[in-house]
Amino acid sequence: MSLTDSSAAEIAKTASMASRLLATLPGAARNDALSALHEAIANSRVEILEANSRDVAAAERAVEAGVLNGSVLKRLDLSRPGKFEDMLQGILSVKDLDDPVGIVTMRTLLDDDLTLEKVSCPIGVLLIIFEARPEVIANIAALSIKSGNAAILKGGKESTESFITISKVISKAIASTRVPKGSIQLVETREAVSSLLAQDSHIDLVIPRGSKELVRFVQDNTKIPVLGHADGLCSAYIHADADLDMAVQVIVDSKTNYPAACNSLETLLVHEDVLQTVFPAVAEALFAKGVALRCDPPSKEALASRVVDAQRSLISEAVACDYKTEFLDLVLAVKTIPSDNQSEKSLDAAIVHINNHSSKHTDIIITKSASAAEHFMNSVDSAGVFWNASTRFADGMRYGFGTEVGISTNKIHSRGPVGLDGLTIYKYKIRGQGQKAGDYSETGCGKRYKHKALPL
Amino acid sequence: MSLTDSSAAEIAKTASMASRLLATLPGAARNDALSALHEAIANSRVEILEANSRDVAAAERAVEAGVLNGSVLKRLDLSRPGKFEDMLQGILSVKDLDDPVGIVTMRTLLDDDLTLEKVSCPIGVLLIIFEARPEVIANIAALSIKSGNAAILKGGKESTESFITISKVISKAIASTRVPKGSIQLVETREAVSSLLAQDSHIDLVIPRGSKELVRFVQDNTKIPVLGHADGLCSAYIHADADLDMAVQVIVDSKTNYPAACNSLETLLVHEDVLQTVFPAVAEALFAKGVALRCDPPSKEALASRVVDAQRSLISEAVACDYKTEFLDLVLAVKTIPSDNQSEKSLDAAIVHINNHSSKHTDIIITKSASAAEHFMNSVDSAGVFWNASTRFADGMRYGFGTEVGISTNKIHSRGPVGLDGLTIYKYKIRGQGQKAGDYSETGCGKRYKHKALPL
Repeated sequence: MSLTDSSAAEIAKTASMASRLLATLPGAARNDALSALHEAIANSRVEILEANSRDVAAAERAVEAGVLNGSVLKRLDLSRPGKFEDMLQGILSVKDLDDPVGIVTMRTLLDDDLTLEKVSCPIGVLLIIFEARPEVIANIAALSIKSGNAAILKGGKESTESFITISKVISKAIASTRVPKGSIQLVETREAVSSLLAQDSHIDLVIPRGSKELVRFVQDNTKIPVLGHADGLCSAYIHADADLDMAVQVIVDSKTNYPAACNSLETLLVHEDVLQTVFPAVAEALFAKGVALRCDPPSKEALASRVVDAQRSLISEAVACDYKTEFLDLVLAVKTIPSDNQSEKSLDAAIVHINNHSSKHTDIIITKSASAAEHFMNSVDSAGVFWNASTRFADGMRYGFGTEVGISTNKIHSRGPVGLDGLTIYKYKIRGQGQKAGDYSETGCGKRYKHKALPL
Repeated sequence: MSLTDSSAAEIAKTASMASRLLATLPGAARNDALSALHEAIANSRVEILEANSRDVAAAERAVEAGVLNGSVLKRLDLSRPGKFEDMLQGILSVKDLDDPVGIVTMRTLLDDDLTLEKVSCPIGVLLIIFEARPEVIANIAALSIKSGNAAILKGGKESTESFITISKVISKAIASTRVPKGSIQLVETREAVSSLLAQDSHIDLVIPRGSKELVRFVQDNTKIPVLGHADGLCSAYIHADADLDMAVQVIVDSKTNYPAACNSLETLLVHEDVLQTVFPAVAEALFAKGVALRCDPPSKEALASRVVDAQRSLISEAVACDYKTEFLDLVLAVKTIPSDNQSEKSLDAAIVHINNHSSKHTDIIITKSASAAEHFMNSVDSAGVFWNASTRFADGMRYGFGTEVGISTNKIHSRGPVGLDGLTIYKYKIRGQGQKAGDYSETGCGKRYKHKALPL
């Protein structure tokens, strides 16, 4: 399917019209649609798995031909034990979350019979681009409907067959509910995405999930706000007073629990004073997990006399760009923070390094000092700032949000793991009895505003 | 002063570094800087007014030469009674507002000794471009410091002399406080703005206040998020059951209280059933204030037999683009909403017109029906949706925010009048005792998260 700009405009306009009706539906109607979605997907299991098996077969051939990474194949396969059930359960989990729409967060009596209300509402139309994971289609459709947003979805091309089949099931299921059919639309080509990125008068937010190249492409080619992150360059700083065992377990977990994740550790900063004590223990534990270290001269020197021959191949000299690299692999850049008579200065040096190099995702400090930790958390300009805890906790499920739309390194709207409320905004409602603004004045003889907070 | 791209980068970088220190200062230190600012401006009254008189003299010549609008002159003059005092009082008012930084809005026990906190923090670096109103410099500097954001300011060129003088006073005052000097920087040329708009790695938010041409220019020429509005195309819908007196007073206030404001009424939709009753009374009251009506055929027809000769010149036939025009003047476009057996259908037609034509700023309905009003307020996709109240209430002071950074028609982050909290975002802090994420699992044998909400 090749999508012209005019059909992109049509899709975007359809979504926009659907979003207006969807925004007025009560939570129960949106939940009913999620029930229908769940039932339809459960009933179409055979059909969906058949389509998925065609994707898997094509991917297997591509892996054999060496043109596709094996990890894609693994993620693609919906027939793996528990995966289909997880997809179904995911829809019900979203349904069970609190309704993010219609929450009154402020209520003010402006004057007698004149009240102001700030109430959460859907953003409108989302364009969501995601990887070749078929179950994500159902999850994202559920999130969009739950939050009252219309969505235009584009999945990774390796999942095309699964995607088309699931999308037909979703469309048919929605058609039987009060949720307008145009609320979930699916496009199949990357060209479609390019055309849709120009539809800034109809699409309110783009959420690209996938490769950093994709995210950058989206950021560079649209006026629509983009929620997400291109990089997850997370750093840890081991302060002069760090507990050895704590440093070992937090750093090892941050680096090795899932190296390909955006919340994995990429840079380790070590205070000079613990270069001979804490650092070798951390390095030893990382070596045991197969992690290669890119060290600056002092940290390399600290390991020189300790490592056995087998570990030597895991140590190399760091170059400047290593501190700007998201390895997404068992590789870690190490940098020494010079000791100073005033320990605050070393702390500040670590903070400056992080603020200048990290991607504002998640950065952590290992220290016994509460004041050092608080200073670090207030000064590091990142979505997540942790004290004595693994970077890997930066995740919507782990935060207790129930779900996660993505992780944002933006500085406005939503930051860090984005839950359902990140898909809402608010509007102001005033209910009056014919009042004129011209009757009021802050000074002089006009009526005065009461500005009295009312209970929510 | 001509600003090269490299000096723009320098300014942006300086702001970014200042913002990091500023973000860590306690509220008391930021308030101390506001006191210093207030005192310094009060003490420099003569010097500031002298500089301002040079701006005023130049503007008077420009007005005489016919190259400048007289309204600019009026806004420019700081020596008008009460204006200097208002500027000083404005700084103290901002100082007295609640600190928007450091507010904990969520606290969750993830597990024993592992707590998650969501806490408000400054956005970082703001680029604020505003009109030729000298007192706004002091106000915006105060807002930025209060919210912990570094700001780069550019005022309208007619206020250049006042601007330079006030900026020197501000810089000197700040230098005596804990707020870093680079927190407030001022640039003088429009070229500077163009170069700064490219500094998306250092500047986090642009707030253009001024002509819609300026706002559009900014929106079209930067990757930095833009907060504000180009248009304020506000509409009112008079429903079939509207109270006559209420309609008259709300519509007249909305249109005539301050026609040049973004929250003034530009389009009036009238239900066919009240074309011969409510509408003529509204029109009569508008004519008395000198408002010209651009009517569709039915509304024009409704007035034909009633108007006296003197009013005829105030009625003309509407063309399609009138319903897309922000007149900012004593002109109002009028459109009839056809009667339907089902009154919901007429209501929906009005809603569709508004969603397709308005600028998502503020739209109102006049009706006795609570259900019609609620449907209207839920369906109209605008920052402000009012029932039986003037569009002119859409204002930060009137909403009780104490101040207003601007009015946003964005769909994310901040919508409607933006108070101090619109200049903040949040970060997530985790305080742990060395926990590893790998120890936890949602299923199976790992540790479980407690996800218990803690008191704020």
